[in-house]
Amino acid sequence: MLVFPDLYAETCPSRKVLDRIGDKWTPLIFGMLENGPRRFSELQRSIGGISQKMLTQTLRGMERDGLIRRTVYPEVPPRVEYQLTPLGETMCEPIKAIFKWTEDHYTEVVAAQMQYDSREA
Amino acid sequence: MLVFPDLYAETCPSRKVLDRIGDKWTPLIFGMLENGPRRFSELQRSIGGISQKMLTQTLRGMERDGLIRRTVYPEVPPRVEYQLTPLGETMCEPIKAIFKWTEDHYTEVVAAQMQYDSREA
Repeated sequence: MLVFPDLYAETCPSRKVLDRIGDKWTPLIFGMLENGPRRFSELQRSIGGISQKMLTQTLRGMERDGLIRRTVYPEVPPRVEYQLTPLGETMCEPIKAIFKWTEDHYTEVVAAQMQYDSREA
Repeated sequence: MLVFPDLYAETCPSRKVLDRIGDKWTPLIFGMLENGPRRFSELQRSIGGISQKMLTQTLRGMERDGLIRRTVYPEVPPRVEYQLTPLGETMCEPIKAIFKWTEDHYTEVVAAQMQYDSREA
């Protein structure tokens, strides 16, 4: 076990954890589950552009990382719900800070993109 | 211009901004530039596993987004430096919160992965 994790080292386990958080879909799934357990179909409906395959893969990765728990209720048809674990809940604040930054600043980013593109053209 | 950005809508500009922040390399570049301007070669040397092509692409994207500024100094050979813009600097706190979470919790994530893998095997 490394005493000082080094996010900048490709082989450090902490770097792989950072890569998970910094993937395209994980933050959006966090934002949904922060409000309580959700079924697969609710997640898929709410997250624009995610395919069934990507959602399945991302949820499995988050479960493996100990961030969410998958519960199957023995009903007909079986109900499957996903919810944050206590470890996953500790991730909500940092993710919310990223969301807030995006909401506060995305118009500045879009303006910068337009300026850049007009300069390059 | 959308009044209420919707990160969950695939076509909302705010979603594209979130995707940029949540890519594999951008947070690590932020972590470097937070300490001052850096040359291309310094960034490449410090960020384990990044290729020249990926670093070039990511820096260009960040410049287009108005997060960093590229300055060419007329020396021989020309010196090129990258530094955060004022907009980019506002991103440092949220990124640091993600880094801190990763450093504080990555051992728990690794333990969860080992437990998951032994259960699935």
